[in-house]
Amino acid sequence: MDSESYMFGPYKIDLKQVFYSTQLSYALVNLRPVVPGHVLICPRREIKRFVDLTADETSDIWLTAQKVGLQLESYHKASSLTFTIQDGPQSGQTVPHVHIHILPRKRGDFEKNDEIYDAIKEKEKELKQKLDLDEERKDRTIEEMAEEAANYRKLFT
Amino acid sequence: MDSESYMFGPYKIDLKQVFYSTQLSYALVNLRPVVPGHVLICPRREIKRFVDLTADETSDIWLTAQKVGLQLESYHKASSLTFTIQDGPQSGQTVPHVHIHILPRKRGDFEKNDEIYDAIKEKEKELKQKLDLDEERKDRTIEEMAEEAANYRKLFT
Repeated sequence: MDSESYMFGPYKIDLKQVFYSTQLSYALVNLRPVVPGHVLICPRREIKRFVDLTADETSDIWLTAQKVGLQLESYHKASSLTFTIQDGPQSGQTVPHVHIHILPRKRGDFEKNDEIYDAIKEKEKELKQKLDLDEERKDRTIEEMAEEAANYRKLFT
Repeated sequence: MDSESYMFGPYKIDLKQVFYSTQLSYALVNLRPVVPGHVLICPRREIKRFVDLTADETSDIWLTAQKVGLQLESYHKASSLTFTIQDGPQSGQTVPHVHIHILPRKRGDFEKNDEIYDAIKEKEKELKQKLDLDEERKDRTIEEMAEEAANYRKLFT
């Protein structure tokens, strides 16, 4: 596989959004994060359901999530993390490519700690709409995302 | 470690609740599940934060989650799964022992797909209260849990 090509379901991801990668996984910043440091970890292979990852891919995305979570919790001065996979359409998955949401959490970031999941869902819908209507992207520029990704890249060198 | 002893944070788990285990992980039915088949996967070692698991433990709990998710989605005639770790108190964790929630999901199981997370949080609070006040358990008997666990055990033999 071309190591410089990252697909997220049917969407080609700008390299500037990617801040960490392994042979099997990559980490990207979000177009519209729910909280500072809300990022996604994907297997490089475009696989829809979690169960269809190989054992090596499963281990690799979670070891990557662990490493990324540790750094971003610290970077954002947070004190907890939410990790979640919406695995299949009835769990809220909209982009059909396995992805782990990682969200650095702080006291009071949401009035109820779990409202964050509603926010993830809404943002994911919006992400899909935005990716589908590429010309209408306006909420976050590639420059903003590139800057965030560049900051995160330094954490892993 | 005694292979017949399962701790969930400070709580000793009745063997009858455990339906699958590996050398490093175990799967248990819930005292008060949010949806049918809502189960938890824990590392055997009592570790609070996900980042503090060893690479072997991290791989093992997720390979276990994959295996359990596959069987329970089918068993409960569901069509998706939610996997989530509330990692630290600011993300809603109440029992200080890493655990993956697995929830088989179906169309229409919650009015909004993500209300399930509020439900997890509430049930987890209740679980903690119930475990703290063991004599007040009344919402689900050990017999009910044992029966569910026995059914699941058959899926893994």
